[in-house]
Amino acid sequence: MTELMNKSDLSGTYDAARAYELDRAHVFHSWSAQAEITPMVVTRAEGSHVWDANGTRYLDFSSQLVFTNLGHQHPRIVAAIQEQAAHLCTIAPAVANGARSEAARLIASHTPGDLDHVFFTNGGADANEHAVRMARLHTGRHKVLTTYRSYHGGTHLAVNMTGDPRRWASDHGSTGTVHFFGPFLYRSAFHATTEAEECQRALEHLEQVVALEGPATVAAIVLEAIPGTAGIMVPPPGYLAGVREICDRHGIVLIADEVMSGFGRAGRWFAVEHGAITPDLITFAKGVNSGYVPLGGVAISDEIYSTFAHRTYPGGLTYSGHPLACAAAVATICTMEDEDVVGRAERLGEDVLGPGLRALAEKHERIGEVRGTGAFWAIELVSDRTTREPLAPYGGSSPEMGAIVKGCQERGMLPFVNYNRIHVVPPLTTTDDEAREGLAILDAALDATA
Amino acid sequence: MTELMNKSDLSGTYDAARAYELDRAHVFHSWSAQAEITPMVVTRAEGSHVWDANGTRYLDFSSQLVFTNLGHQHPRIVAAIQEQAAHLCTIAPAVANGARSEAARLIASHTPGDLDHVFFTNGGADANEHAVRMARLHTGRHKVLTTYRSYHGGTHLAVNMTGDPRRWASDHGSTGTVHFFGPFLYRSAFHATTEAEECQRALEHLEQVVALEGPATVAAIVLEAIPGTAGIMVPPPGYLAGVREICDRHGIVLIADEVMSGFGRAGRWFAVEHGAITPDLITFAKGVNSGYVPLGGVAISDEIYSTFAHRTYPGGLTYSGHPLACAAAVATICTMEDEDVVGRAERLGEDVLGPGLRALAEKHERIGEVRGTGAFWAIELVSDRTTREPLAPYGGSSPEMGAIVKGCQERGMLPFVNYNRIHVVPPLTTTDDEAREGLAILDAALDATA
Ligand SMILES: Cc1ncc(COP(=O)(O)O)c(C=O)c1O
Ligand SMILES: Cc1ncc(COP(=O)(O)O)c(C=O)c1O
Repeated sequence: MTELMNKSDLSGTYDAARAYELDRAHVFHSWSAQAEITPMVVTRAEGSHVWDANGTRYLDFSSQLVFTNLGHQHPRIVAAIQEQAAHLCTIAPAVANGARSEAARLIASHTPGDLDHVFFTNGGADANEHAVRMARLHTGRHKVLTTYRSYHGGTHLAVNMTGDPRRWASDHGSTGTVHFFGPFLYRSAFHATTEAEECQRALEHLEQVVALEGPATVAAIVLEAIPGTAGIMVPPPGYLAGVREICDRHGIVLIADEVMSGFGRAGRWFAVEHGAITPDLITFAKGVNSGYVPLGGVAISDEIYSTFAHRTYPGGLTYSGHPLACAAAVATICTMEDEDVVGRAERLGEDVLGPGLRALAEKHERIGEVRGTGAFWAIELVSDRTTREPLAPYGGSSPEMGAIVKGCQERGMLPFVNYNRIHVVPPLTTTDDEAREGLAILDAALDATA
Repeated sequence: MTELMNKSDLSGTYDAARAYELDRAHVFHSWSAQAEITPMVVTRAEGSHVWDANGTRYLDFSSQLVFTNLGHQHPRIVAAIQEQAAHLCTIAPAVANGARSEAARLIASHTPGDLDHVFFTNGGADANEHAVRMARLHTGRHKVLTTYRSYHGGTHLAVNMTGDPRRWASDHGSTGTVHFFGPFLYRSAFHATTEAEECQRALEHLEQVVALEGPATVAAIVLEAIPGTAGIMVPPPGYLAGVREICDRHGIVLIADEVMSGFGRAGRWFAVEHGAITPDLITFAKGVNSGYVPLGGVAISDEIYSTFAHRTYPGGLTYSGHPLACAAAVATICTMEDEDVVGRAERLGEDVLGPGLRALAEKHERIGEVRGTGAFWAIELVSDRTTREPLAPYGGSSPEMGAIVKGCQERGMLPFVNYNRIHVVPPLTTTDDEAREGLAILDAALDATA
C-alpha cells in the first residue's frame, strides 16, 4: 500500500528525501558530472516562487531556464492542460486537430511579416535543426553561419551551431557550421568604442566572412535576436537590418533563434521587432507555453513554405504539434493578449529592472556593465572595471561567483548564472515589489561578498 | 465572445471545419508536400478508437505512430496528468523532483542488466542523438554503424543514422554514420535460404564491415531491437547475441533503439529480451508514456555512467525530465505492471494477431509474408509471390496500396502503411474482439481490391 502510494502519488506529500535519493540513483543530469552534483529538491512552485525540501521559499529570478514566462502554476494554463487532457491528450501529426490549429493561428498572428506557417517541434534544439534543413533545401546550399557567444541547443547540429564551450566536445568539424562575431561593445572583437562603430564594424566583418566563405555556399545566417545565455547583448540599432540586407543581397536565409528572446521576454512578442526586421524563419520554444508542456517550433515565411508546397519536406517527429503542448500554448498566448503581458515585461524593464540594476552598478565596483530590455537583463561581473577582467573565466566558474550565487540563494532568491554573469530574467508576471525584493537580495549578496 | 470561445474552448465542441481551415493555413506538416495533403480532422479518441469530423468512428490499428500503447484517453494516465498539472507542471532539469525520480526508478526497474541511469529527452530522435554522443565520448571513437532499413529520428544526426529514404535529402556524408545490412530473410542481402543461415551470414557481414571500417574507429553499433517502420523484421535467434559479442570483442558500444519496440509493444518490456542480451544503452520514447506528453530518453549502463561521473556530460535540453511527461510515464508503467499489459500484448500476438494474419495469408495471394510478435506485426504485400515483387516500390506508393488503405478506412479501420507493407500495430490494450474486427476489415479490403 505504501509502495502503491509512493508509486502513484506524486503530489505535495511525495517524500522529498525519496525524490533526492532516487534522483541520485537513477536520473542522469544535463551538462553535469553526475557524481559531483547535489540537486535541490523542488517540492512546490507558484507564481514567482519555488519551495525546496525544507519548505524554504525562493524568488525565481531565473524563470528556471528562462522559460516560465507566466510564472509557475498559472491557473489558466493549468486548467487548459487539464481540459485538453480530459478531451484528447495526443494524436499523430498527420491529422488535423483543434488545439494544434488554434496554437498555429495564434503564433502566426504574432510573428512578423508573412511568417504564417508553423512547424511544431518538442523544443528549441529540434526547431533549429529543422530550420537549418529548410534553409539548406530552399537554397540548395550547405553552409550555416552562426555567431560566437550563442546557444542553439543540445542535439548534434544544434550544438555545433552553438558558439559557446558546450559545443567543443561535440565539434568534429563536420556540420557545415562557421562562426562569426556579433556586436558586443563591452568586449568588442572590432576595437570599437561606440555602439555605432561596433554595429558598422560587425556588419563589415559579417560581410567579409560571407565573401570569404563564398556567398553561393551559404544557406543560412542564424542568430539569436538577442543572444541569451551568452550574455543578453541587445544588438545596436541597425545591426539586424544590416544582417537582413546582407542576406537579401546574397540569397541567404535569415533564421532568428527566438527560443529564449521570443514571446514577451524582451518586451516585444519577438525580439526582432526591436530591429524592425522580418527574418525568413523564426525558431521558438520556452515562452510559447511557458514550458508547461514541451513545445518548440519554426515559423516559416510564405516563400520558404512554397518550396515545400509540392515537394515533400523531408523531416518530422512523432510529437509534432502535440495537442497537450498546443493547448498550453493557446492558454499562454491568450493570457498574454488579455493581460498585456508583453507590455508588462517592457514596463518591468523600464521602470524597475533597468533602473534598479543601474543603481546597483553605481554602488558595486564589480558590476562592469548592465545590459538588457524587458525582463531580460545581464550584469557583467569583473574584478577590475578598467581591464574588464571577468570575475570567472570564459567557460568556467570561480569562488567569487560561487559566493555571490550562494549569497543570493541564502537570502531566498534563485539567480541565473553563466560564467562571470548574473542574468536577471524573472517571470514576465513578476510584480514590481517582487522585482525590487530580488534586486535588494542581489545588492545584499554583493555587499556580503565585497 | 464567439472569438473568445474559439480561442480557449478546445473541447469536443470545437468547430472541426475551423480546425481544418486553420490547419491548412498555418500548420506545416511532417514528411509532407504541404499543398498536397488533406488531413483528417480528429475530434475525439477513446481506447482503441478515434472519431473524425463527421463523427465516423475508426478502429486505430496504427496506435497513431505506434505510440498509444495503452490506447487513447486511458483514465489513469489522464488523471495523473491532471494531478501533476495541478501540483507542478514544470521545473528545470538541474533540480530533483518526485515525478522525474519516480519515472527514472520505474524505467530502470524494467530495463535489462545494469541500465539503471536514465537521461530524459523529449522524444526518440534526441534520445538517439544523445546516446551516440555518450558512446563517442565513452570510446573516444567517432564512427557509428547503423542498419539499412531502419528509422532513428528526424534531427540531423538521427536522420543520417536512419537507413530509409527519409535520410537521403539530408545526407551530406558528414555525420560519421556507416550503414550495414541486418538480417531479413524474406529479402535476404546474403542469398540465404534459412533463418539460421541468414543469421550467420548477417553476423559475418557485420564482422566484415567492422573489420574494413576499422574496429578502432567505431564508437557504436546502433540497431532497432526489432526494426519497426522499416518492416518489423524480428531478428533470428542468435543475431542480437552475435552483435553483442562483436561489440564486446572490439570495445564498441551497443545501442538498442527501442523507441518503437520497447514498453510492451513486442510482448516484452524491451524487445532485446527476445534475444536475451543487455545493450550498453537503450533509447526509448513513445510507449514509455503512451505518447500522452512528449518524452524520450536513454537508459545507461553503470560503465557508461562512470565515464560521466566526474567528467561533465556535454549535452542537455531545457525539458529533460519534464515533470508532466514523467508523471504520465509513472501512471503508464504502473498501469502496465498492475494490469499485466506486456503479457496481454504477448497473448494478443499469439492468440489473435499471429494466427489471424497467417489465415489471411492463406487466402490472399498478395500477402507475401507475415512477421511479428506481440502487438507488432507486418504483412508484406507483393504482386507476385514467387518474385516477391513489392506492391509498391521501396520509398514509394502505388494505386494498389492506396486502394487497400482506402478500403480499410472506408470500413472504419486506420492501418499503418509503409510502402508495400501494412503494419498491424494496435494499442496493447486492444481486446480480442476488436483485433478480430480489424483483421476482418483488412480481409474485406483485400477482397474488394483483389
Ligand atoms: C537561444 C536558444 N536556442 C535554443 C535553445 C535550445 O532549446 P532546448 O533546450 O529546448 O532544446 C535554447 C535553450 O536554452 C536557447 O536559449
Ligand atoms: C525506432 C525509432 N527510433 C526513433 C524514432 C524517432 O522518434 P521521435 O519521432 O520521437 O523523434 C522513431 C519514430 O518513429 C522510431 O520508430
